[in-house]
Amino acid sequence: MEPVFQFPLALPERGQGNLAQELHQQLRSAILDGRLAAGSALPATRQAAAALGIARNTVVSAYDLLIAEGYVVPRQGAKAVVADVAARRDRRGPKPLSAGPEDTRLNPMWRTPFLRPEAPRQLPERCFRLGIPDHRHFPHDIWRRLSAQSLRTWSKTRFSYPPSEGIAELREAIAQHVAFARAVACVADDVIVTSGAQQAFDLLARLLVTPGQTRVAVEEPGYPPVRAAFAAAGARLAPMPVDEEGLCVDALPDDVRVISVTPSHQSPTGVALSMRRRRALLDFARQRNAIVIEDDYDGEFRFGGRPLDALQTLDRDGLVFYVGTFSKSLFPSLRKGFIVAPAWARDALISVKHCADSHSDTITQSVLAAFIRDGHLARHVRRMRAIYQERREALMEGLRGPLAPWLQPIPCEAGLHMAAHIRDPELAPAIFARLQRHVPGAQSIAEYAMTTSERPGITFGYGVIDADEIRIALRRFAASLAELGAR
Amino acid sequence: MEPVFQFPLALPERGQGNLAQELHQQLRSAILDGRLAAGSALPATRQAAAALGIARNTVVSAYDLLIAEGYVVPRQGAKAVVADVAARRDRRGPKPLSAGPEDTRLNPMWRTPFLRPEAPRQLPERCFRLGIPDHRHFPHDIWRRLSAQSLRTWSKTRFSYPPSEGIAELREAIAQHVAFARAVACVADDVIVTSGAQQAFDLLARLLVTPGQTRVAVEEPGYPPVRAAFAAAGARLAPMPVDEEGLCVDALPDDVRVISVTPSHQSPTGVALSMRRRRALLDFARQRNAIVIEDDYDGEFRFGGRPLDALQTLDRDGLVFYVGTFSKSLFPSLRKGFIVAPAWARDALISVKHCADSHSDTITQSVLAAFIRDGHLARHVRRMRAIYQERREALMEGLRGPLAPWLQPIPCEAGLHMAAHIRDPELAPAIFARLQRHVPGAQSIAEYAMTTSERPGITFGYGVIDADEIRIALRRFAASLAELGAR
Repeated sequence: MEPVFQFPLALPERGQGNLAQELHQQLRSAILDGRLAAGSALPATRQAAAALGIARNTVVSAYDLLIAEGYVVPRQGAKAVVADVAARRDRRGPKPLSAGPEDTRLNPMWRTPFLRPEAPRQLPERCFRLGIPDHRHFPHDIWRRLSAQSLRTWSKTRFSYPPSEGIAELREAIAQHVAFARAVACVADDVIVTSGAQQAFDLLARLLVTPGQTRVAVEEPGYPPVRAAFAAAGARLAPMPVDEEGLCVDALPDDVRVISVTPSHQSPTGVALSMRRRRALLDFARQRNAIVIEDDYDGEFRFGGRPLDALQTLDRDGLVFYVGTFSKSLFPSLRKGFIVAPAWARDALISVKHCADSHSDTITQSVLAAFIRDGHLARHVRRMRAIYQERREALMEGLRGPLAPWLQPIPCEAGLHMAAHIRDPELAPAIFARLQRHVPGAQSIAEYAMTTSERPGITFGYGVIDADEIRIALRRFAASLAELGAR
Repeated sequence: MEPVFQFPLALPERGQGNLAQELHQQLRSAILDGRLAAGSALPATRQAAAALGIARNTVVSAYDLLIAEGYVVPRQGAKAVVADVAARRDRRGPKPLSAGPEDTRLNPMWRTPFLRPEAPRQLPERCFRLGIPDHRHFPHDIWRRLSAQSLRTWSKTRFSYPPSEGIAELREAIAQHVAFARAVACVADDVIVTSGAQQAFDLLARLLVTPGQTRVAVEEPGYPPVRAAFAAAGARLAPMPVDEEGLCVDALPDDVRVISVTPSHQSPTGVALSMRRRRALLDFARQRNAIVIEDDYDGEFRFGGRPLDALQTLDRDGLVFYVGTFSKSLFPSLRKGFIVAPAWARDALISVKHCADSHSDTITQSVLAAFIRDGHLARHVRRMRAIYQERREALMEGLRGPLAPWLQPIPCEAGLHMAAHIRDPELAPAIFARLQRHVPGAQSIAEYAMTTSERPGITFGYGVIDADEIRIALRRFAASLAELGAR
């Protein structure tokens, strides 16, 4: 679209459609979106007609319509000018900007939104923030090549509404991947592709929670967006303590019907659910007719000895829904996750997905399927595991070395972050006051808690910071704490 | 991964990680996903060690673990064999395959899923199915080029969780597009990107419906997935009749608080909501503190005289949520739609989106933003409008010519389908019996209705069928009806 006069117009070829109508609409759009500013003069009709190569009558009738609609103001003996549409636009929002708790037009659930999108913090590129993997080591060239291939194949395929549960190639690839990487026993039919892990939790919450009735156990501290998904579905939340063996299964109230847990790498403390607790949790679920949601958000990155079996692998009774994501193993904006669901619930779950958004976008699904199928995911995870391991060791050195007087690392064997308790709770405020300056992006464990946490602690992400930078930052942090003394 | 012996293995380089553990996991995965079939013999440990170039002890300890776990069965004096894991897998589903209405583990809403993903019909590539645009005229080369560009830019950007409301470039592009194409008055801030129109309805239903309380008016007949989204949110549905002026506004019950409507091109009858009704609808909403959801799913394709203003354009009081989609103007598997929301509800709406799936995938968002920004969407819509117009005329000729004794076309000025009433309801069963053979993909209007519809009718899509094919099909259909006689 090239500018004609002061305004951008692209009239159709002669003989195609109604020119007056087209001109009217394009002018109106330009006025509405501000390309034609209020008060600016339109060219005279004769002048416009000549420049556009159309009949003057055509321009006259387009102008007349605009005047009738109030978009253009005629002036006696002078060129017509653009009306002040912004004033009209402002009248659209007579209500206060946020609906507010008293606005009965909204579902009470959302009148005071309990989950606010995280405000983007001003963090340096290299920092200790949680849950973001490193883009510098991603095989962008491979992804680009597979994208081009997928797009070429797709250009030969007729358009359609693809299956809600995901395209067959991706479900197949995911089934093989989780069998391989996590010993999760499943076939393609068990897999439902979701728009990230968050959609998985949201769909499961809607499926499994009877509003106002179902009691759902969540880890405390735990990942807030998962809690929000259950709360939004009307669950009665039961926050469960977490200790060095993970979720305290003994504390589960008898009437809990859904238990959401991060067994590989508790979010945020990083502990693994012990084998004893895993068995106890499955026993509990079996006896109470309850369901377990296994959130394995970064379990691909394991550094310790032989990993514990996934709950899904141990389950023989269709009690476990396994939720995985590619946000940590690949990248978050891919927005692809999945549920491995027991057979009895699959049809209903696909219905929820169908109702929520029909299906996930398929071009990205195809690229991801090819990426997994050709072994790139496995290779990338193996390569990143070595890189993250080095960072993890640097972090551990700092925590056990210079920071040892103040911090006590919490044992963990997997994932992209590690946590530590503050030894002397009385020093916590002073330590947190120095945190962002020296260890930007690190978070207080309390940010993950619904209630006040007993022991203050800090989580350190190592997804986007190099080992050397970790060493330097932790040494400086320790130096800044030296003035506090230690316990 | 290349096959070694009978099974696929890719062991890491020497010195990286624990080889026994790696071997154990890879074998277990191969057993779980069926690459190693039940009953097949594992190679002897000595043989395996030699072939893989690793110590025999490594193989022995991997085999021992598999035996302890029951994945492999040792045999006295013979090679160990793979256990029958399928039998174990089957034990996972002791419950019936579908949960069934009595399964208290599910939210009652989903025990009998009311929205089933449409079973893929066996339809020829060229057919009269509704709502699918034509892939043959899509500028795949441009899309591919913009994808490659977006991926190159993205490869230089650090990974992050993008904004829930959509990336800025796309919101900006959409705002300009709807101002231009539909005279919808909005700026980028008013736009929320969704995963298709279905997610827009789902988010709005969750935001605006207080479960068990809010009464929602839907068109009858109307688009079933929209109805399902409101029902799933716990709405009390009020099906409203549709006549030649569209939704019968006079029939709206006083206690309706949300009205979902397709004013440009009613789904499925195709009629446009008259200007009189538009004003009456906005008056109703203003007086009752109700909200209007304007579903403009294929309003870009307009063929008639001057189009009626969108409800959003007429609204001065923040009553209208405008829902658009690229499923018809571009392609359905893109899975991108949007809401133009009044300012008072925007924050809450973004919270619902954040809870539902955090955000939509960003690579596709970038490509779409570039596609709109560079004018390709406007050009594509203009090109397709001419193509669809020809098909529409062929359809109209058939309905007014050979099919006139049996069918009466319903006037419509927009979209990708047209509908006709059956003149003599008594002939309807015989006509439907002949429909799929001659006009495959055409649907009974009754498929869109909650209740029995008064006048039987047929919808004809022309998104994926050429004008010539339409002419031939309709002539043959008419010939097959000739034996029925006419009214």
